[in-house]
Amino acid sequence: MSHPQSIFHHTTFAPDSILFRRRRTVAKVTLQTQLKRLRETGRYDCFKLQWHEIYADKSMWPVPFHLFWDSDVAKWIEGACYFLHDEHDAEIDAAVTELVDMIRSAQQDDGYLNVHYTVVEPGKRWTNLQDMHELYNAGHLIEAAIAHRQYYKNNLLLEPIKRYVALIHETFGPSDNQLHGYPGHPEIELALFRLYQTTGNRHAYELSRYFLEERGNRKGQEGQHYFEWELKQRGQNIYQRPDSYPEHASHWYCQSHQPILQQETIEGHSVRAMYLLTAVADMVCINISGDKPLLSSLEWKDALYRLWNNMVDKKMYLTGGIGAIKQWEGFGRDYFLPQSTDEGGCYAETCASIAVMMLAERLLHIDLDARFADIMELCLYNNVMTSMSLDGKAFTYVNQLGSSEADKSVREEWFWCACCPPNVTRLYGSLGGYLWDFGEVTREVFVNVHLYTKAQLKFSTAEGDVTLEQDTNWPWDGTVRFRCTSSEALKTTIRLRIPSWSRSQYFLDPKPSEDRVHLEKGYLTLDPSYVAENPLFSLIIDNFAPRYIAPHPYANQNTLTLARGPLVYCMEDADNTWEDNHFKDVGLKVGSPIKEEKRFIEGAEEEYVALRTSCWRQAVEVKEAGVAPGYTVDGKATDNRVEEAVFVPYYLRANRGGNGQMRVGLRCSQ
Amino acid sequence: MSHPQSIFHHTTFAPDSILFRRRRTVAKVTLQTQLKRLRETGRYDCFKLQWHEIYADKSMWPVPFHLFWDSDVAKWIEGACYFLHDEHDAEIDAAVTELVDMIRSAQQDDGYLNVHYTVVEPGKRWTNLQDMHELYNAGHLIEAAIAHRQYYKNNLLLEPIKRYVALIHETFGPSDNQLHGYPGHPEIELALFRLYQTTGNRHAYELSRYFLEERGNRKGQEGQHYFEWELKQRGQNIYQRPDSYPEHASHWYCQSHQPILQQETIEGHSVRAMYLLTAVADMVCINISGDKPLLSSLEWKDALYRLWNNMVDKKMYLTGGIGAIKQWEGFGRDYFLPQSTDEGGCYAETCASIAVMMLAERLLHIDLDARFADIMELCLYNNVMTSMSLDGKAFTYVNQLGSSEADKSVREEWFWCACCPPNVTRLYGSLGGYLWDFGEVTREVFVNVHLYTKAQLKFSTAEGDVTLEQDTNWPWDGTVRFRCTSSEALKTTIRLRIPSWSRSQYFLDPKPSEDRVHLEKGYLTLDPSYVAENPLFSLIIDNFAPRYIAPHPYANQNTLTLARGPLVYCMEDADNTWEDNHFKDVGLKVGSPIKEEKRFIEGAEEEYVALRTSCWRQAVEVKEAGVAPGYTVDGKATDNRVEEAVFVPYYLRANRGGNGQMRVGLRCSQ
Repeated sequence: MSHPQSIFHHTTFAPDSILFRRRRTVAKVTLQTQLKRLRETGRYDCFKLQWHEIYADKSMWPVPFHLFWDSDVAKWIEGACYFLHDEHDAEIDAAVTELVDMIRSAQQDDGYLNVHYTVVEPGKRWTNLQDMHELYNAGHLIEAAIAHRQYYKNNLLLEPIKRYVALIHETFGPSDNQLHGYPGHPEIELALFRLYQTTGNRHAYELSRYFLEERGNRKGQEGQHYFEWELKQRGQNIYQRPDSYPEHASHWYCQSHQPILQQETIEGHSVRAMYLLTAVADMVCINISGDKPLLSSLEWKDALYRLWNNMVDKKMYLTGGIGAIKQWEGFGRDYFLPQSTDEGGCYAETCASIAVMMLAERLLHIDLDARFADIMELCLYNNVMTSMSLDGKAFTYVNQLGSSEADKSVREEWFWCACCPPNVTRLYGSLGGYLWDFGEVTREVFVNVHLYTKAQLKFSTAEGDVTLEQDTNWPWDGTVRFRCTSSEALKTTIRLRIPSWSRSQYFLDPKPSEDRVHLEKGYLTLDPSYVAENPLFSLIIDNFAPRYIAPHPYANQNTLTLARGPLVYCMEDADNTWEDNHFKDVGLKVGSPIKEEKRFIEGAEEEYVALRTSCWRQAVEVKEAGVAPGYTVDGKATDNRVEEAVFVPYYLRANRGGNGQMRVGLRCSQ
Repeated sequence: MSHPQSIFHHTTFAPDSILFRRRRTVAKVTLQTQLKRLRETGRYDCFKLQWHEIYADKSMWPVPFHLFWDSDVAKWIEGACYFLHDEHDAEIDAAVTELVDMIRSAQQDDGYLNVHYTVVEPGKRWTNLQDMHELYNAGHLIEAAIAHRQYYKNNLLLEPIKRYVALIHETFGPSDNQLHGYPGHPEIELALFRLYQTTGNRHAYELSRYFLEERGNRKGQEGQHYFEWELKQRGQNIYQRPDSYPEHASHWYCQSHQPILQQETIEGHSVRAMYLLTAVADMVCINISGDKPLLSSLEWKDALYRLWNNMVDKKMYLTGGIGAIKQWEGFGRDYFLPQSTDEGGCYAETCASIAVMMLAERLLHIDLDARFADIMELCLYNNVMTSMSLDGKAFTYVNQLGSSEADKSVREEWFWCACCPPNVTRLYGSLGGYLWDFGEVTREVFVNVHLYTKAQLKFSTAEGDVTLEQDTNWPWDGTVRFRCTSSEALKTTIRLRIPSWSRSQYFLDPKPSEDRVHLEKGYLTLDPSYVAENPLFSLIIDNFAPRYIAPHPYANQNTLTLARGPLVYCMEDADNTWEDNHFKDVGLKVGSPIKEEKRFIEGAEEEYVALRTSCWRQAVEVKEAGVAPGYTVDGKATDNRVEEAVFVPYYLRANRGGNGQMRVGLRCSQ
């Protein structure tokens, strides 16, 4: 079992796919830009443990501005290490080295390693697990350390981090002299399982499993919910709560309202939920493998599937975004999926969709089922890709499906809570590991191909190297040409994802006989004999015609959205200059002719397919003010104006000028 | 200028209108039932100032269960006094008398009169105006005292209440030695203006005006917002807040986020907002009348109209309900009007619509405009009337437009926060005052008729009595026959409301010549010469055909609702026994034939008109779980089943059996 973060370097991306260009932009521009921001804001030097003026700012409660600085640095190191595998960069290398030195020097004698509780509130360690991101920061340090070791082949970062893990392991657990707590913001759990799988550190496994099993225990500490117990220890009243807790004891905010195994629906802060479930999936992966699978793994798997299904079917936007509600950066009730701030919210945080990709990738190791990879691809090309500008310098935190005057479709250079930009860096850095996974047992080799692009996979076996190349114009075109090279002593099975949106319109060339291939759970398995006979073969997904998609009727949206292949499209006023109301009154009719148009963005060297069709601008009846709620409907045709409309991929939004007016779902015209 | 509460006794309702039957039910059943509840729960005896076990219950914060008991008693007294005018009832009379004795005995030496701060937290008076309803309770005592004096013609309740008002007037105001506060829950303001207009008490006017002008001052007390200042005095942190405050300092909850004059949209708790604006309207009425109208009145009037228009156009349900959000019992953002709990909420509190009627009635005194009376009638026959069962024994607090499994369409016998049932009693008690208003200046008499039913109005002038009778089968039929009797020495002008839903389809019989009538702002003015020549005349509103209404498109509801005259209709499973999903998948098409059917409910002696039409049950596509968000739409017709559907007036819901499945807005079928 592997993680994308550990196998990505087996993949080489080839010019000139979208993914290749995005990765090149991050390597050449984004890493440097983000390093500059770290330096400018004080983050770069924070492990020197000097006072920074922002530490005195008490205007935010309970989370001060600098609380995530440890993780911002750690995530940048992690991303940097991934890209250094591609190509050495002296400036990046020097910065990583210096940062690691500073982190080492910041460690306390007992192994403790956290800026806030060393500099700002010494003596208050572990007093507010719910809000203060102490274990979250530790998790990102662990992930950075694993990435650092993988590239640098030394333990300069891993060694102090292991000492910190030992301290945490000693502090938390079921014994009477331990705290029975767990992080308010999950993240360390998935980091610990990676640490266990990378280094065999048993403490890491035990600790993470404890965090997952203890979470949501309503009587965990002295007969009380841990977060309620610790707030009493701090002398705080339960009604004194962060703004993200709409009501007192809103423990669903961080998925601790119930033990995970009892949770029926996905709730609360969406990034926390996804990091948590990614760790659960990892635990299931670990516990179902090997000679003695744990029986309880099935229960955990059931919980995972239940929460996944609830999320995808009832709480996910068409773009792969999750979380409608700004207040708790997370999920609303079932089918609450408004498109924009003025319609009730649309958060769809960048980090949350990145985390959906992480979770989906883990689930593929439990069950090779294309539904997980479909969602992984949906998130990548839509909610995630839209979060970075083509020049790699600006980002979104929130990815709404519709703009409004109060909330235009724009990007920012940085955020005080800067979780999203370095998460994008980490993801693109390790992206090769999401394309496929592979393995070998006694000369039987397999490669499961999840995502299609121009790339080469190469790995070694005792019988020599195996390489698999794929070449395609994806996501514009569905022909994917493969070339497989491996020793004749190896039996190579290749599994290819058939996306559900293709509606099974695909074929292989050369055409195999029926007993050489079979389709199971959306993966087409090519028998070793087929692969041996056809080192060159092509998969043709033959359904790239534009199609209409729509949310569930219970979402009360009544909208149509254009999609093509894995891409979701939107309208922008950059093309549709006649619009001045954020496309709120614009409708589409199923069946109107749609033309495809190849376009090119100069400078960005970005090619894409735009869609042209007709739309209807509905006139909203102007009524006298204050007379009656609603309207009388008499069935007479309303005066709708037809306009020529241009749609572009959602990931392109806010790159080509305009006034920030954009919408994904248009009214369903009659 | 008059209030419904002071002129209602000029009206006699005649059998057998809906309004007559409702009032009779309240007089014969509800008053007694509510008295029984007061006795059973401890409310009846609370002014004895003895300890009650419920006072020790600290499970609710900040509002303990008994906090509104003063007002529950006061509202019952007020309602009882209104009905005693109709007919003496020895049991009710005895209870009022005993309660007044107990209230008198509860008054402290300095005039203070509040159960909680005398018995439970003595010494903490005026320390939590935001949450503790101290001034709210005082307001209801004032209203009770005015009603009591009007019926009993003595000062047994008014005298102690005036002493209490004097204390409050001394406590609050602009001087350095006064508190610059105002109530968290408005109510006393409108009560004080009524006290001023009834008794000329100048303190009452000054105090109420101060409360309105000071409200929302961000620097009112020691440079701070009053509610923030007082919580600091209590040693409370601003993040420690009631569950109704979703974020800290959510002062919009009680309309104190800004001075009223600066408020652009109607926000927060809907009952608070309506009570507040009713008081503002009363202040405008007072200040624009007389010889020296206050210039600032125009500004207050502008604010009133702005907030009224925002509410009616963007935040009111088709039934006259207001407030979508349960957490703060109030308004969501513009156009947020889901029908049911499972779709995001639908509060539409009974008290809130009663308060809309109070506000609308006040606005008619500023501007005789039918839009105010239209909304008054909409609320009365729909959101308000649906809140009481036909037998007068059960009530709703929340009046959703659609049921769900978690929240069926049912009524309750009582509520721990029992604001709604006695408010219904008060309203029906004083209902005669909402039908019309009237006046006389130097032998010129006017009657403005707002609501149509079977009733007689009678009032005296120096030239003798004036009577106006109306006879009609409203709300089923639009013919209203009038008979006016007055001295020949009086010139009598009569103004008749033409509802906006009639779309001006009306006529008068006998037909007047053009110069004898004119229509202005929805009121048809009959010239004194027409009235003198035609003491018997009829208004015929000729548009009682069923019609479709719909919320604004931006509400994203995409529903159709049947309405007829002033009534909004709903579907219930009592009639439509084929339904098992709360009508979520049921659609209507404009233009389907609709049949009217007269029905009769045995026992309740209730006649009504049901509507029969066809509806379409849409099949929701069953997808594999967890594969993709939303659906692919191919424009093929879906398999919709046609059913025969029965609609009944919304006010009838949950009276005729069934499983509590009900919906007002049905999908708009194509």
